[in-house]
Amino acid sequence: MTPKSIPEPTAFEDELADFREQFVITEPQLIYLDGNSLGRLPKKTAERLQQVVSDDWGRGLIRGWNTDWFDAPTRIGEKIAKLVGAAAGQVVVSDTTSINLFKLVMAALAKNPGRRKIVSDELNFPSDLYILQSCIALLGKGHTLQLVRTRDGISIHPDDLASAIDDDTALVSLSHVAFKSGFMYDGRQVTRLAHQSGALMLWDLCHSVGAVPVELDVWGADLAVGCTYKYLNGGPGSPAFLYVRSDLQEQLHSPIWGWFAERSPFAFELDFSPAPGMAHFMVSSPPILSALAMEASVDVILHAGIERIRRKSVAQTGYLIDLFDSKLARLGFTLGTPRDPSIRGSHVSIRHLEGYRINRALIEEMDLIPDFREPDNIRLGIAPLYISFEEIYEAVERIRCVVEEKRYLHFPEGRLAVT
Amino acid sequence: MTPKSIPEPTAFEDELADFREQFVITEPQLIYLDGNSLGRLPKKTAERLQQVVSDDWGRGLIRGWNTDWFDAPTRIGEKIAKLVGAAAGQVVVSDTTSINLFKLVMAALAKNPGRRKIVSDELNFPSDLYILQSCIALLGKGHTLQLVRTRDGISIHPDDLASAIDDDTALVSLSHVAFKSGFMYDGRQVTRLAHQSGALMLWDLCHSVGAVPVELDVWGADLAVGCTYKYLNGGPGSPAFLYVRSDLQEQLHSPIWGWFAERSPFAFELDFSPAPGMAHFMVSSPPILSALAMEASVDVILHAGIERIRRKSVAQTGYLIDLFDSKLARLGFTLGTPRDPSIRGSHVSIRHLEGYRINRALIEEMDLIPDFREPDNIRLGIAPLYISFEEIYEAVERIRCVVEEKRYLHFPEGRLAVT
Repeated sequence: MTPKSIPEPTAFEDELADFREQFVITEPQLIYLDGNSLGRLPKKTAERLQQVVSDDWGRGLIRGWNTDWFDAPTRIGEKIAKLVGAAAGQVVVSDTTSINLFKLVMAALAKNPGRRKIVSDELNFPSDLYILQSCIALLGKGHTLQLVRTRDGISIHPDDLASAIDDDTALVSLSHVAFKSGFMYDGRQVTRLAHQSGALMLWDLCHSVGAVPVELDVWGADLAVGCTYKYLNGGPGSPAFLYVRSDLQEQLHSPIWGWFAERSPFAFELDFSPAPGMAHFMVSSPPILSALAMEASVDVILHAGIERIRRKSVAQTGYLIDLFDSKLARLGFTLGTPRDPSIRGSHVSIRHLEGYRINRALIEEMDLIPDFREPDNIRLGIAPLYISFEEIYEAVERIRCVVEEKRYLHFPEGRLAVT
Repeated sequence: MTPKSIPEPTAFEDELADFREQFVITEPQLIYLDGNSLGRLPKKTAERLQQVVSDDWGRGLIRGWNTDWFDAPTRIGEKIAKLVGAAAGQVVVSDTTSINLFKLVMAALAKNPGRRKIVSDELNFPSDLYILQSCIALLGKGHTLQLVRTRDGISIHPDDLASAIDDDTALVSLSHVAFKSGFMYDGRQVTRLAHQSGALMLWDLCHSVGAVPVELDVWGADLAVGCTYKYLNGGPGSPAFLYVRSDLQEQLHSPIWGWFAERSPFAFELDFSPAPGMAHFMVSSPPILSALAMEASVDVILHAGIERIRRKSVAQTGYLIDLFDSKLARLGFTLGTPRDPSIRGSHVSIRHLEGYRINRALIEEMDLIPDFREPDNIRLGIAPLYISFEEIYEAVERIRCVVEEKRYLHFPEGRLAVT
């Protein structure tokens, strides 16, 4: 077999190269491949936060709520809506992904009391599965959670998903892009599958938004949630968002009746009356500093455009896989990510028995930051706005070096406490 | 009757006067009496946030989670614990007040399934009442909410509360300090009352923490929630906290099973196992920028000390009431706050039929920011760390001037949209 000829990193055309300048990069030699966990700081975000603190809060005081705080959840929600293919009036910023998932799952199960099954898969975020489990426990009505299994450890076979969804299925709740393998579902096809059985479809977009095209309206999706601190670069723990399709907004009822969800919050009535539309799915004051910092970050993504981001992401993850085949496969690594770009998100997982120690050596000695996920996954996150093709080439070189030279051996075995 | 002699503002000794220097004050002529809604910006908070953004996030990237982000909810929780009289291991920072209330009310009602009544009062935050109503609706087991009525529009008579709490009462859920009138309960006495009937006692401390002494452990309280953006000066929408008494932590179960509540979050197990202790009541990543900004603000309060703050607050609210009697009572105002400082928090409400327009005139023409609460309350919040006795004197002068000169008349009548 003739080895595939791999281009030099300089051979790629990079239409987004200039965007790197828009991020704070203090250590140019550090290759940061963990933007799928916490995105880099955009310069505009730092500036905006400075302004929010000094001008809006420091000088404006309570008046900040009347300028651009009170409508921040809907204003920023509409910006995110553009990234997930949602027409106006369907996305708001609120709480955390887990809280939003809780609200929507409880609402979805209440809408369909005759059906008792939730379908998800074993590649989903455990945090999502925990929320599903808590909803089932709380309802106490014998709901069950069926997890579709993976055949190859990487992806879910469409047939397995299809056979799990039946006429007892109330809700299908899936991550569009799997956090460990990067496997990506066909959103339209799966949504249709759910609807054919009369189930509601809920998408977790944490690993999708800002990285891959999402078309909630086109897919006909019912519900969605997502975080903003990964590819949206919103900052640590920045607030999450949720989507409820227009025609469902009056049919579904949030289980948590917050002040922001009230029809006339400033009337201070003693009895709750739900607000119409998406406001009903909000709860109360969002963390404004975190929210407005995130807004500035979302603006950068909007400016770059999700189509261009996706194009570069596919080229970069593909390049990374080619380099993997050429340089890493022979060192005990296996690929933990689909080769077909149409079912791949924006990160590449490479698996190695010594993955834990290799990851530590890369971080502590090689100026390369991936992250590690039990039991053997090193995730290489590709955020096209600030990652160059040269960095991808160089990252693979550093990984090769660490393994060939066994530079990981002096690290203790065991689990990484936190990444 | 001989008019009471009122001291000049300069006659007061002010042991906290120097703390004003620790806050960003851009307009010295502006008198800010809305710190009970959004506290002023401490200089240290602005500095800390600058550092969190540039160093921790911009330079540290994902490594920030390993330095001081991951333990922020417990670390900051322990600081707040000192302000609410809680020994270690009982307070964490998490979510919003409403979400925390939801979690604790659901947990409390599940613990005591034979009892069907929640007791609260009509002076409580409507937002708290909405959460109580949503818990009742969600459980669908015929729970009822009994609101103790006020006799005087300002306070709750202890006898009325006592007669509402009975052996069907599962939970007593009250705001320690009422948001409109500033009425303050005797925390110890009311907690004892709840316990005598076998009910759990939950305190909302939003208008208390950082302003009045709270002794949750001494009171024997079971549960508490609170926000951090009022007297703690944590910034707009800064994250909230919750308290669960040590011996209850293993008996109560959060209805929302979040990743932070898991025993081994980094094992990424598919089935949820609850973490011991307070972690079980957390959900997921807090908004770090908002949380760490708030931590710096809490440090300022801790440094000042709640006893000194309370001493000055009592002197200042008392002084304000004396000035009210002397200068405002004859202008159509009535006092909307208890005169007895032992049942008064740190704000004073003054009521006037033209309250809405007077409030607007004060803000827009008199460099005085109070806030307005339907139907006729102008709230004057006293944050002793940055408010001087001179400002209190001057504030009353400006209010007198606006009403005597009818300077509010050219504002349109109606509700204030947002404050």
